[in-house]
Amino acid sequence: MGRYSIGVDFGTESGRAVLVDVASGVQLATAVYPYRNGVIDETLPVSGVSVALAPDWALQDPEDYLRVFQTTIPDVLRASGVDPAEVIGIGIDFTACTMLPTTADGTPLCVLPEWRSEPHAWVKLWKHHAAQPEADRINAVARDTNQPWLDRYGGKISSEWFFSKALQILDEAPAVYAAADRLIEAADWVVWRLTGDETRNACTAGYKAMWSKRDGFPAGDYFGALHPDLTTVVDDKLQRDVRRPGERAGGLTPEAAAWTGLPVGTAVAVANVDAHVAVPAATVIEPGRMVMIMGTSTCHMVLSADERTVPGMCGYVEDGIIPGYFGYEAGQSCVGDHFGWFVEHAVPARYAADAAARGIDLHELLQEKAAALRVGESGLLALDWWNGNRSVLVDANVGGLLVGATLATVPEEIYRALVEATAYGTRVIIETFEEHGVPIHEIVACGGLAEKSPLIMQIYADVTGRPFRLSASDQTPALGSAMHAAVAAGPDAGGYATIADASRAMTRLKDEAYVPIPENQAVYDVLYREYVRLHDYFGRGENDVMKVLKSLRAEARAAAPALAPAEA
Amino acid sequence: MGRYSIGVDFGTESGRAVLVDVASGVQLATAVYPYRNGVIDETLPVSGVSVALAPDWALQDPEDYLRVFQTTIPDVLRASGVDPAEVIGIGIDFTACTMLPTTADGTPLCVLPEWRSEPHAWVKLWKHHAAQPEADRINAVARDTNQPWLDRYGGKISSEWFFSKALQILDEAPAVYAAADRLIEAADWVVWRLTGDETRNACTAGYKAMWSKRDGFPAGDYFGALHPDLTTVVDDKLQRDVRRPGERAGGLTPEAAAWTGLPVGTAVAVANVDAHVAVPAATVIEPGRMVMIMGTSTCHMVLSADERTVPGMCGYVEDGIIPGYFGYEAGQSCVGDHFGWFVEHAVPARYAADAAARGIDLHELLQEKAAALRVGESGLLALDWWNGNRSVLVDANVGGLLVGATLATVPEEIYRALVEATAYGTRVIIETFEEHGVPIHEIVACGGLAEKSPLIMQIYADVTGRPFRLSASDQTPALGSAMHAAVAAGPDAGGYATIADASRAMTRLKDEAYVPIPENQAVYDVLYREYVRLHDYFGRGENDVMKVLKSLRAEARAAAPALAPAEA
Repeated sequence: MGRYSIGVDFGTESGRAVLVDVASGVQLATAVYPYRNGVIDETLPVSGVSVALAPDWALQDPEDYLRVFQTTIPDVLRASGVDPAEVIGIGIDFTACTMLPTTADGTPLCVLPEWRSEPHAWVKLWKHHAAQPEADRINAVARDTNQPWLDRYGGKISSEWFFSKALQILDEAPAVYAAADRLIEAADWVVWRLTGDETRNACTAGYKAMWSKRDGFPAGDYFGALHPDLTTVVDDKLQRDVRRPGERAGGLTPEAAAWTGLPVGTAVAVANVDAHVAVPAATVIEPGRMVMIMGTSTCHMVLSADERTVPGMCGYVEDGIIPGYFGYEAGQSCVGDHFGWFVEHAVPARYAADAAARGIDLHELLQEKAAALRVGESGLLALDWWNGNRSVLVDANVGGLLVGATLATVPEEIYRALVEATAYGTRVIIETFEEHGVPIHEIVACGGLAEKSPLIMQIYADVTGRPFRLSASDQTPALGSAMHAAVAAGPDAGGYATIADASRAMTRLKDEAYVPIPENQAVYDVLYREYVRLHDYFGRGENDVMKVLKSLRAEARAAAPALAPAEA
Repeated sequence: MGRYSIGVDFGTESGRAVLVDVASGVQLATAVYPYRNGVIDETLPVSGVSVALAPDWALQDPEDYLRVFQTTIPDVLRASGVDPAEVIGIGIDFTACTMLPTTADGTPLCVLPEWRSEPHAWVKLWKHHAAQPEADRINAVARDTNQPWLDRYGGKISSEWFFSKALQILDEAPAVYAAADRLIEAADWVVWRLTGDETRNACTAGYKAMWSKRDGFPAGDYFGALHPDLTTVVDDKLQRDVRRPGERAGGLTPEAAAWTGLPVGTAVAVANVDAHVAVPAATVIEPGRMVMIMGTSTCHMVLSADERTVPGMCGYVEDGIIPGYFGYEAGQSCVGDHFGWFVEHAVPARYAADAAARGIDLHELLQEKAAALRVGESGLLALDWWNGNRSVLVDANVGGLLVGATLATVPEEIYRALVEATAYGTRVIIETFEEHGVPIHEIVACGGLAEKSPLIMQIYADVTGRPFRLSASDQTPALGSAMHAAVAAGPDAGGYATIADASRAMTRLKDEAYVPIPENQAVYDVLYREYVRLHDYFGRGENDVMKVLKSLRAEARAAAPALAPAEA
């Protein structure tokens, strides 16, 4: 008798399920459900009313998440021909922080008629950026009161995170806040819908809600300093019992069994975050190898047996990725988006015509041309700050820079310089980790960018001086969730005792490796020194021209609202 | 009886004649002759042989210049219906330094069968850039021997100038050098062809051949230190009798009268340079107003009653523009070329389609969109060094810089930032002049860029804080040559005694002026401070990243000749 598990990965635009063989990790079937209401950033999808959203808002419809279960799990069962009784567990991973207010039984406020036209009753998606004033307050009060947890997050809490969003609800819609018996990550909410039991997971709590295994959540007086009504938020609306990755959250309810076609009681794992669940799925269960999820932005994760304060990282959480280790996260906010911006805004018509004639896309054309350039030949150097700098500067107000252009500069040279800039940014992160006691000798990459571009991977290997390997799975997060499902089911059911066991059995790397080429490294070492000099000059306060420019831009736009198109 | 004069302007690709009314300066007719052999930069136009030119070479065919006289002067006479007897003089202006070797009677060596296949026998066009090693030697020896004239040229002699080119002939083709009885500016050579008399003019001698009214040419021992055979170059192959602008060089020979249809003996003015002759044609005959000829690059000219050493300018010459004044020249090497590069290499297909659908060119489209932006709204700042920096850094090895880009940056924002960068570059030149005792309170602009773009002119006015006026003539250099023709003919023939008199009578400005808008100035003052800070940081040695990049680029190209396309 076979043993299978299902991982469900909730992304920004869609959810996808993967059904895998628990013994080998082989993927038997995949199914995708694009959310009916997608990212809600203009008006609420409520018939009969028109509720416009302010800029920077990004909401979702929780019923879309349930439709993912209702469609993709029956789909993968059908496509694989697997007997539902042979599925030993389900695991899920989610974007984060993506959170919503619910009643005590888990009913989202936004499905209730009295709250349906209230934007704050809906799910706030990870990229909802309207809570910046609340994040500023959270940071200011934390600094003023010397909160010990602030260092764990590179000294800064993001507007994307849990309490920024919670406080925005309280500030702007106190009635919603009062009506919300629970404030909960969507990750935990879907697990609750499957099992009937409310659980909270260490990954979102640790990385997005200032929780730690040793100290729990920040103290009530800290929350009270933010807003008197927030003093008891944890006890009122969250849960102090935070569960580790791979634990069993519960079993499928009859209702959820009916949605999915799986037996009642099938094990459901504690929720997880998409990037973090990818780490063991990319074979990494020990310190020394960093996982990079490379897409529109890049998320870097590395494990350490010791607690180290590394400046400028997104955060670290004990047991946050693999129980027994501190999981460190860093980020680059502009990677695929960087190249996408260039292709959309800065590539001439003759290139577009050439690509169209050859039936390839502009990225392929530019990478082909850029690959013909030698290291250093472009004569260009860029700072990859088109979307600010997450790690290690933690500064959204720096901007992009390109230096060295001449009248002979051609588009593929700029494209290559932008790729190289993101690689230098990665090297800064690696070196910062190493300088603070978190060694990194190899990188495992996954995500679309890693799989599609050998040129980009070779540049990263040459710039960082580290070999780059690729995860064999093209659905690394979903595979990770399926692994956690197997651990939640446990060895007695045919699963595994630990995530490490599951990782060893169910994952592998692709055979090819991108190994640094010494001649290229030598030139990149020179260029990297120049990058670091510009990075520090513009990024560490010596020349604040980027901030001056952003502030002039904001003033000009405020003065001319009629002319200002919405920010992308 | 009317009085007319003819100005002939020899450009890079063509020559043009303008016939004007001497009393009013009104242009009655214009004619253009595109050079049959254009710019010769690949192979010599000699049938039966194939002589390839090295990169950086740029030659011309002197017979093209004679064809300009033979076609355009009859054309303007015919088109205007003017009686040739009523034409009192001809003046010419030329690109410079554009020079050639000839025999003692002025026959170009390149028309002689024995030299026709020798590239060094042809005309070296101003943008012939292959004499850099010679320019380096000229500069090194001048510094080592403390040549007093070096300061007049911003401390650096260009590879484009007369003795760089002459020395290249001597270095690489000593037989051509020996056979050349004369080395002469094409400007002076065409006057020689018209009059039968060899004259030399103060403008090319002063700006391109290190001559000054007080000290003449550099001493023989300096030339001897460059090359023993160069010791007597001035006496052997040039002429020490250098004539002022507006003097009469001679009268038309019977042969030239036959070419042109004008009477034998018609006055011909001493030759001049295109940019410099435009100054009085743009109404400027006194200190305080700067003339800017704005095209692919920009040439700035201003007069001063006093001799001032202004660092980083192209040079100053007593009597070089208007007798009685020191004429100062500065330059920006990348203006129209800057915007042209952007349109060619960095504007996406949807913009090209939009422009095509509306029947406008991409510059018009981008300027229309850029004009809708408020000052500061782009959030961008650039250093206009895509083609190095002529004034005030005198450094060809700096490169372009763009700072402040975000994922929301659109092409018209970059286009506007590039325009603004060239305006900041102009302000640096203006402020450097003023700091060294050469005041500038107004600018008169001419050239294609000035006429075609109100947006660019307004930005320049706002950035510099000076009003910008436009020359009324659309053929300012040719009008200037026609004015010099009227002065060469003199008052007795119906012309003028001085260039100032001719300028007052024959030139005017357009009525509209671009006046600084105080709100814009206030923001540009902030941006300009940031520009200057970057300018000095990257341009004055604190951070040499641009040079490092150029040197890595050169190394990469040297290592990969097969992959290196020719530099534009």
